[in-house]
Amino acid sequence: MTDTRRRRVPRPVREQQIIDAAIGVFAKRGYHAASVEEIAELAGVSKPMVYLYLDSKEGLFLACLRRETERLVSALRAAAGPVHGPELRLRAGLLAFFTFVTGHRDSWVVLHRQAAELSPAIAAELARTRRAVVTEVSGLVRAGDAADAGPACPDDEADFVTYALVGAADSLTDWMTLHPEEPPERITLRLMNMVWVGMRNVLDGEVWTTPGREP
Amino acid sequence: MTDTRRRRVPRPVREQQIIDAAIGVFAKRGYHAASVEEIAELAGVSKPMVYLYLDSKEGLFLACLRRETERLVSALRAAAGPVHGPELRLRAGLLAFFTFVTGHRDSWVVLHRQAAELSPAIAAELARTRRAVVTEVSGLVRAGDAADAGPACPDDEADFVTYALVGAADSLTDWMTLHPEEPPERITLRLMNMVWVGMRNVLDGEVWTTPGREP
Repeated sequence: MTDTRRRRVPRPVREQQIIDAAIGVFAKRGYHAASVEEIAELAGVSKPMVYLYLDSKEGLFLACLRRETERLVSALRAAAGPVHGPELRLRAGLLAFFTFVTGHRDSWVVLHRQAAELSPAIAAELARTRRAVVTEVSGLVRAGDAADAGPACPDDEADFVTYALVGAADSLTDWMTLHPEEPPERITLRLMNMVWVGMRNVLDGEVWTTPGREP
Repeated sequence: MTDTRRRRVPRPVREQQIIDAAIGVFAKRGYHAASVEEIAELAGVSKPMVYLYLDSKEGLFLACLRRETERLVSALRAAAGPVHGPELRLRAGLLAFFTFVTGHRDSWVVLHRQAAELSPAIAAELARTRRAVVTEVSGLVRAGDAADAGPACPDDEADFVTYALVGAADSLTDWMTLHPEEPPERITLRLMNMVWVGMRNVLDGEVWTTPGREP
């Protein structure tokens, strides 16, 4: 084997290196200001190779979005899968989410803080990402496994709870940037405190009523 | 008075008409595809007049953002101001929010579903909008008036609850587009059910603990 062949990196590995570099640059500069040149340099490849493998700046961005969505969805599944009972499963899912955001701040910026309006293809991919996350969280919220007590809840109640949870967790990633010292475990605990009891009530069809103190 | 003078519309009124037209066009076409020509036509004025009054497409967009933020903040204040007790105040604020989004769907699209990355000035204005809303909600969450029972809660607990609430309500506006028949009152009731009890626990410093069912 020659030196040249020994240094050849297989395409899938190279692509992951390019995506790693791209996430860093997109997160730092934003989509418009990011240059394929800087991404290529950071990945240690030529600019033509980036275009050959990932087609365009838009193609690069889509590849970043897809890979990071897969990672987040995998993290949610891996965490919640082996856990029995909706309460512990939700806790495991939230913890996985906040741990992901803490450990992949750049990915999170690329995934969610970039403009959905950049291009129709990116908007479509972002919508797909959002649906994938909603589907995972929806699975956490519904009483899905045999070990769970309680009847399965109506779909629209579960959807309501899911949208509220996804939005709360998403917004809390902004709170996290203001409180970088806060560990994911404590954020999870607080959010569980805030939503768990009420979620069960909504899913069970119980209704809060306005107290008779209104003037 | 001549016919010409009688038809003259004062500048502040004209500006509001232009902003009304702009919100419709931005919501329908998105920022990039929106044309000042279409906005001028819809407002019944000339294109040069739009530029004279609001400077540029970016200036138009900023004017839309500012006016709609003021309207939303005013709606939150007007609803919650005269209500005593944190529970009823929160309910009034949430109801005002969901009513605003139901009645001003176009404004909402302009306010929050457009890209923060459009320009640095727009990004700054969107950040200011978000802070204004967070400040209002934070006021709802804290025990702020003399009639309220209970001690004032620590700032960071209140901030946590505020970010979670703002995110949940924001995300539920997506749920609303899937359920256009759902009245704001019912959405408010469901969200109160989901968060009220838990919020009080978090604000009072009570802590949820993992049940002893973990494998």
